[in-house]
Amino acid sequence: MSLELAQLSITQQFELLVQAENKFALNEFLNEQNISDVAELINQFPDYEALIIGTMAIHRAVSVFKILDISEQKNIIKNLPNYKIAELLNELPADDRTDFLEELSNSVIRDLIKLLNPEERKITLSLLGYPEDSVGRLMTPDYVYVYEHNTVEEILATIRKFAKNSETIDVIYVINEKGELIDDIKIKSIILAAPDKRVDEIIDGRVVALNVNDDQEHANQVFKMNNRVALPVVDDNNILLGIVTIDDMLWVANEEYSEDIQKIGGTEALNEPYLDVPFFKLMQKRAGWLIVLFLSEMLTATAMGYFADEIAKAVVLSIFVPLIMSSGGNSGSQASTLIIQAMAVGDVHLKDWWRVMRREIFSGLTLGTILGIIGFFRIALWHELMKHGMIEDLYGMHWLEIAFVVGFSLIGVVLWGTLTGSMLPIILKKLGADPAVSSAPFVATLVDVTGLVIYFSVAMLFLKGLLL
Amino acid sequence: MSLELAQLSITQQFELLVQAENKFALNEFLNEQNISDVAELINQFPDYEALIIGTMAIHRAVSVFKILDISEQKNIIKNLPNYKIAELLNELPADDRTDFLEELSNSVIRDLIKLLNPEERKITLSLLGYPEDSVGRLMTPDYVYVYEHNTVEEILATIRKFAKNSETIDVIYVINEKGELIDDIKIKSIILAAPDKRVDEIIDGRVVALNVNDDQEHANQVFKMNNRVALPVVDDNNILLGIVTIDDMLWVANEEYSEDIQKIGGTEALNEPYLDVPFFKLMQKRAGWLIVLFLSEMLTATAMGYFADEIAKAVVLSIFVPLIMSSGGNSGSQASTLIIQAMAVGDVHLKDWWRVMRREIFSGLTLGTILGIIGFFRIALWHELMKHGMIEDLYGMHWLEIAFVVGFSLIGVVLWGTLTGSMLPIILKKLGADPAVSSAPFVATLVDVTGLVIYFSVAMLFLKGLLL
Repeated sequence: MSLELAQLSITQQFELLVQAENKFALNEFLNEQNISDVAELINQFPDYEALIIGTMAIHRAVSVFKILDISEQKNIIKNLPNYKIAELLNELPADDRTDFLEELSNSVIRDLIKLLNPEERKITLSLLGYPEDSVGRLMTPDYVYVYEHNTVEEILATIRKFAKNSETIDVIYVINEKGELIDDIKIKSIILAAPDKRVDEIIDGRVVALNVNDDQEHANQVFKMNNRVALPVVDDNNILLGIVTIDDMLWVANEEYSEDIQKIGGTEALNEPYLDVPFFKLMQKRAGWLIVLFLSEMLTATAMGYFADEIAKAVVLSIFVPLIMSSGGNSGSQASTLIIQAMAVGDVHLKDWWRVMRREIFSGLTLGTILGIIGFFRIALWHELMKHGMIEDLYGMHWLEIAFVVGFSLIGVVLWGTLTGSMLPIILKKLGADPAVSSAPFVATLVDVTGLVIYFSVAMLFLKGLLL
Repeated sequence: MSLELAQLSITQQFELLVQAENKFALNEFLNEQNISDVAELINQFPDYEALIIGTMAIHRAVSVFKILDISEQKNIIKNLPNYKIAELLNELPADDRTDFLEELSNSVIRDLIKLLNPEERKITLSLLGYPEDSVGRLMTPDYVYVYEHNTVEEILATIRKFAKNSETIDVIYVINEKGELIDDIKIKSIILAAPDKRVDEIIDGRVVALNVNDDQEHANQVFKMNNRVALPVVDDNNILLGIVTIDDMLWVANEEYSEDIQKIGGTEALNEPYLDVPFFKLMQKRAGWLIVLFLSEMLTATAMGYFADEIAKAVVLSIFVPLIMSSGGNSGSQASTLIIQAMAVGDVHLKDWWRVMRREIFSGLTLGTILGIIGFFRIALWHELMKHGMIEDLYGMHWLEIAFVVGFSLIGVVLWGTLTGSMLPIILKKLGADPAVSSAPFVATLVDVTGLVIYFSVAMLFLKGLLL
């Protein structure tokens, strides 16, 4: 490439090469870039997706394909000739291939699997057999294994032979003749050891393995707690099936993050980037929960209708309805997200429910009292302003009772909000559901109806015979 | 250890050994367990924290200490004799040490730094000099580097010499005489290459480096997009300062997850496990936002007061206030969490604001119309029931106008909610704040007041001269 060309930005160079229709130069150019830069190019030029992937060296194309969004991956597969798809899918590491395939419809999966060579087909079908979100779906069968009686020299020979097809050689696995996992060895120990040392002299018997049916989130925790870049995956009989590499965990964490945040906000998990979800699908994911919440919130209209007479007698009561409701909702959202987060990262377990409840009873009382006092003084202040004619008098002679009603209601509503918010995720988890479903809107809705009942009950207590 | 002892659970074995007060056997026992199991023991027996850490081999104690919660780490440091603390801190990898120290008060940091040997002290002080949440705080200076003119044989010799103190040897770094980063080489390529090959024959010139001032979240993205277990960290002059390993990214992702979820729920980030935060601190973190939200929500009382005359004339209007308000809040929470999540994972950027806004205008209209139609028919249905005397008649002869008021208000309020919810995170980011601050409660509060105004304005339009 001429010096002049090299001074242009990657985007500009790419545009020139595409215009020149020089496939050879384009291939050379693409092979020289970092895979993240090529992915960036694909983002910028969606029309050339298939061209870019189709033109690159296949092992590089695979690295780029792996990190693209699912929508881009689908587009590429749609626009590539069959022989290129076959090349790409066969070259793709088994775990990434499973990841991609599980996003497609069954009929498309069938068509694509036909393109695989017999060996890869067998692996893929077996990986797709594991439950979604299980470690099985993440594992790759491409790893290096040795036996206890091997020497360091033999290990190095094995590595040289198989490293090309192995996802990582940072950790080597030791198995016995039955295929059972004995231990893992870091490459560091192998390089540091004398060539004639035997495997059983190097290993320390401290191996951490994942079960193929483990939850991916669990795997994430295990990686966090053990200093390994890859972990072996075994079945219930301790037979080594594959390995999971730590880079997959970054994607798992990311997915978990997105799903939980979307659920907390009251949307079904999108599973696709926001801007790529088709509008109709976006509406489906959002409307469902909104309608459920709306139908539940209709109970507030029923509750309000029930207290219509009281409101007619004392319109002033209706003035504080939004304030009371939102305070319950806000304290509920706070409590529920705190507990969802604490359970997700393993700080709180089901058995801690009583400790949480005790904490939240005190929290609710404290926070409710703070808001109650502020509410009380706000009404007292307004009353002063009204007395001096600075604003219209809404409270009348019973301002003090009204202030007490608002103050005490706030304590009750905030206490109820924090209790509901904190217990709901725990109950959901106990029932086997995802705690993140106890979204802020869900909690707020649960708290709203009860909040109204608390408010009007307190009002009856204080204002009976006065305003009511 | 006797066979009998080995059949007991880890917890039981530990208890026996502690009771026997046999330090030697305890040391041997602890050294044999996985570090995650030892961490588990520390969780179960907080009183023995310092004993466990103090009894283990120092390099194992360090591995356990690294993965403990900050509160446990603090306790251990409090209860260990100074010489043990010195040993532990000096042995701790520089990045983990920085992580731990930055959680402590300045006076404690000063005391602890005095315990470090001069070399480690210098490294620590320089790492603490980088901004919090920067890559600089994560990096470790323990890596293996070689020069371009080295041969593979020389590299292997270098690795054997320095690997003991190096955090990883999965990637080796190539620098020039000025200390500038030239490239990185995976250990795989080194093992596969002939011993007399020179470094400049192996390298491919494709190196991805982090800047020491980069944000940790950015580093997380770079790791996700590039297949590396460690990335080099350089300063603005491309001088190699250290490396960051991928396992740190799991902790970064975890912290990001916790902070964002807590903020979305309307709490300041706790930075400590929920059950470990002292009660007073928990109240501080929660009360602040609740009070701000409460004070803002007081505007709803002002708005309601403004429409008190209308409510007095048509109490039926007040019945739907909670329903209208919550619909705005729910649609707002949905939209804001969707955009917070999309921005956090890099699916939406500031420049996409118009695409987001256009999407949300259509989303708001669609969702609002759905809820509006449901609301309309709910009122029509109740009217039928009332006509037949099955429930108390609240709507009277103007039920159709009321149904229209509720229906159209819902369209307006939901549209306003989705717009506010989606734009607020973008505006916050533009202003340099964390988008996650636009919590569900924050958005709901913003939407509530406007929602009331929209509702009563629509009511005036439809009911003027009828009920009002």
